[in-house]
Amino acid sequence: MSRITPLTGFPEWLPRERLVEQQILDVLRETFELHGFSSIETRAVEPVDFLLRKGEIDKEVYGVRRIQADESDADQMALHFDMTVPFSRYVLENAGKLEFPFRRYQIQKAWRGERPQFGRFREFLQADADIIGRGELPTHFDAEVVLLIADIFSRLDIGSFVIRVNNRKVAEGFYRGLGIADTAGVLRAIDKIDKIGDRVREQLPDEVGDEQADKIMALAKIRTSDLSFGERVRALGVEHPLLDEGLAELEAVMQTAIAAAPQGVVLADLSIARGLDYYTGTVYETNLEGFESLGSVCSGGRYDELASDGKNTYPGVGVSVGVSRVMAVLLRDGIADVTRGVPTCVLLAVGDEAQRAESNALASSLRSRGISVEVSPSAAKFGKQIKYADRRQIPFVWFTQDDGTHQVKDIRSGDQVDADPATWMPPEADLRPRLSHPHKENS
Amino acid sequence: MSRITPLTGFPEWLPRERLVEQQILDVLRETFELHGFSSIETRAVEPVDFLLRKGEIDKEVYGVRRIQADESDADQMALHFDMTVPFSRYVLENAGKLEFPFRRYQIQKAWRGERPQFGRFREFLQADADIIGRGELPTHFDAEVVLLIADIFSRLDIGSFVIRVNNRKVAEGFYRGLGIADTAGVLRAIDKIDKIGDRVREQLPDEVGDEQADKIMALAKIRTSDLSFGERVRALGVEHPLLDEGLAELEAVMQTAIAAAPQGVVLADLSIARGLDYYTGTVYETNLEGFESLGSVCSGGRYDELASDGKNTYPGVGVSVGVSRVMAVLLRDGIADVTRGVPTCVLLAVGDEAQRAESNALASSLRSRGISVEVSPSAAKFGKQIKYADRRQIPFVWFTQDDGTHQVKDIRSGDQVDADPATWMPPEADLRPRLSHPHKENS
Repeated sequence: MSRITPLTGFPEWLPRERLVEQQILDVLRETFELHGFSSIETRAVEPVDFLLRKGEIDKEVYGVRRIQADESDADQMALHFDMTVPFSRYVLENAGKLEFPFRRYQIQKAWRGERPQFGRFREFLQADADIIGRGELPTHFDAEVVLLIADIFSRLDIGSFVIRVNNRKVAEGFYRGLGIADTAGVLRAIDKIDKIGDRVREQLPDEVGDEQADKIMALAKIRTSDLSFGERVRALGVEHPLLDEGLAELEAVMQTAIAAAPQGVVLADLSIARGLDYYTGTVYETNLEGFESLGSVCSGGRYDELASDGKNTYPGVGVSVGVSRVMAVLLRDGIADVTRGVPTCVLLAVGDEAQRAESNALASSLRSRGISVEVSPSAAKFGKQIKYADRRQIPFVWFTQDDGTHQVKDIRSGDQVDADPATWMPPEADLRPRLSHPHKENS
Repeated sequence: MSRITPLTGFPEWLPRERLVEQQILDVLRETFELHGFSSIETRAVEPVDFLLRKGEIDKEVYGVRRIQADESDADQMALHFDMTVPFSRYVLENAGKLEFPFRRYQIQKAWRGERPQFGRFREFLQADADIIGRGELPTHFDAEVVLLIADIFSRLDIGSFVIRVNNRKVAEGFYRGLGIADTAGVLRAIDKIDKIGDRVREQLPDEVGDEQADKIMALAKIRTSDLSFGERVRALGVEHPLLDEGLAELEAVMQTAIAAAPQGVVLADLSIARGLDYYTGTVYETNLEGFESLGSVCSGGRYDELASDGKNTYPGVGVSVGVSRVMAVLLRDGIADVTRGVPTCVLLAVGDEAQRAESNALASSLRSRGISVEVSPSAAKFGKQIKYADRRQIPFVWFTQDDGTHQVKDIRSGDQVDADPATWMPPEADLRPRLSHPHKENS
């Protein structure tokens, strides 16, 4: 039996860890739905040439083909590496059947053959939400997405977070106003400022002179939690119509965000570039405080031209939560846990095997009232059955006496009380496993 | 923009169809958890030689390799074609960290390059539940699985169903008792009896004589909803220790199932073979009444030797619900629908754009009380905003008057009433979209 080894970059959780992930996913789903987003799923594969048409040639894409396939149809398909490209295809394919603006969320695995490292996987779970319009999509949706991100991380309750907002037009207009030709080259350098700091200056294109570089670096260092970023940009003395447009959009987004989001979580950060080509306006990154080195755990932005069918273009704005990345840090640092490791609330003890049919009936009755029940795997001595429950962290053990009466033991406290099968309920906090926050509870 | 066409065999649902699927998945998850099963997920890929080692050579497996990979590492991985093989690997890999008997469920996509047809896809969603023991696993778990299946289809409430149970040892022992060498060949033929009926007789191996064939066909035709199958088998006059063992197990399973499952849903059906090699005892198939041609929508069985690490063997028993297959028939025949096509319950009308910030605050407050809210995409005339809600099937439109008072309109009835943002709730039935049964409601 060879090959029973983990594959690097393809994480799998133990049942208890998966319970944490399930709670996280439940919060994401609930938040998306409270904000009016509909769930969809797209197939795992796309035609290779469709996946690669948006300048993604350097992505480590996984090709898919039947092992028994002819040589001729090799590598026509590939696993998607994000949800945005498949979603744009879904919108074009179903445009006639969707209502616009269309709000959708999508929680699925994606695959990239990158070199695995902490928080970066080859198979990873993303949770995306986008609003897509037909023809036009007002900028107030860009602000709505900030409120969505704020609501997600407030509800997840996994620590402090900062949402950093920028607008591609600001940098693009600023660089053009400086007379720079290779604005993409400048953006690529600035994109690394979180990682290498001031050394990005050395990576600016050759055409950039000292004075220009000073202004580029000054722009990238502007971070404000209020609307003062506008003044500070204008004080740099660069002018361009696209810069004005970008600043007006960023001001509108920040104004709404500051008014509606919890205080201090939203920051205008003029260094945010986002690597992907398709963003055309607002861009977002979200950092968990204390885990900045992990990078952004929720990123996205506005794309005006991702999807087009010749007749219509479909501008959109959205974000993607890096669920696997969040899970990596939650589990490593014990930030989130669950109140117990199994769904089971009650173990029905079995006195002897002849009693099992009766226990099955009782289990069925308790389940019909929403209580998760397991019938004991064996009619071992009661002490052994209690130990079984204890090992699995099942909080209650149920005993049916010979006279037909019932008792329930809370094996944490040892308390054992009479119980009526028709009415007994566990305390609300014990009904299902819940997310817990070990650090908070200790402090 | 070429290639914006569906891929045959890779289904994608529209948002309303996906809502139906979500409700189905919620029921599956809830039922599994009520029965004490823990969720896990395994990675989408396995090493090719691991996937193929269990006699699955004729499966149309999809190989996966990085497009930029060297020739040397081509096709080392493949997409899993079921959940059983990856689960057996997961158990071996994590055996030291799991409690046995280990109860897990797993709801994931799987991939097979079969020729697509109605209800058979190349990418499909399966929902598996298995109980796996270390060293041993008593037969009463085989009965528990029948109760799980019955509970699933009762809760799904998508029509009448029949769970057909058999035991591999019965057929194997019976054929051996008849002196047949190629028992696997007989089983392969009998496996087709649902599709081609009595013509399976012609497909029996050459060694089978007329008298043997008579008995084989007689065995395969025994179907009873009580325990009388035992007498009827014994009346055929064939004897073998394995036959006795199989009948005893099947009787025990049927006895428990008849006692605890709703009346008439469980059938001992001695024709059930199940194609896969790894089943060694009890086998299950489940049919939706009226959709027998669709084949089984929930199948499984007992496997004594699927996983082994040299020191221990891990016998298991479980089932797999073919979610995509169920969805195919539900959607085609309009058996299940949802009460509305979007999660949104309330659209906040916007009088003019200056009011949007206020609407965002109101939306946030309603969401904090569990109500799904969308702020109107534009400050168009109210009639147009109501039409927007109507097209998206959002049941309520909320108006904030100039004097600061609020009204809510139920756009289905036209009723418009005063509402207090701090306390207003929709009727319970309107809070979230729910599964509906158009046929039932019409009858």
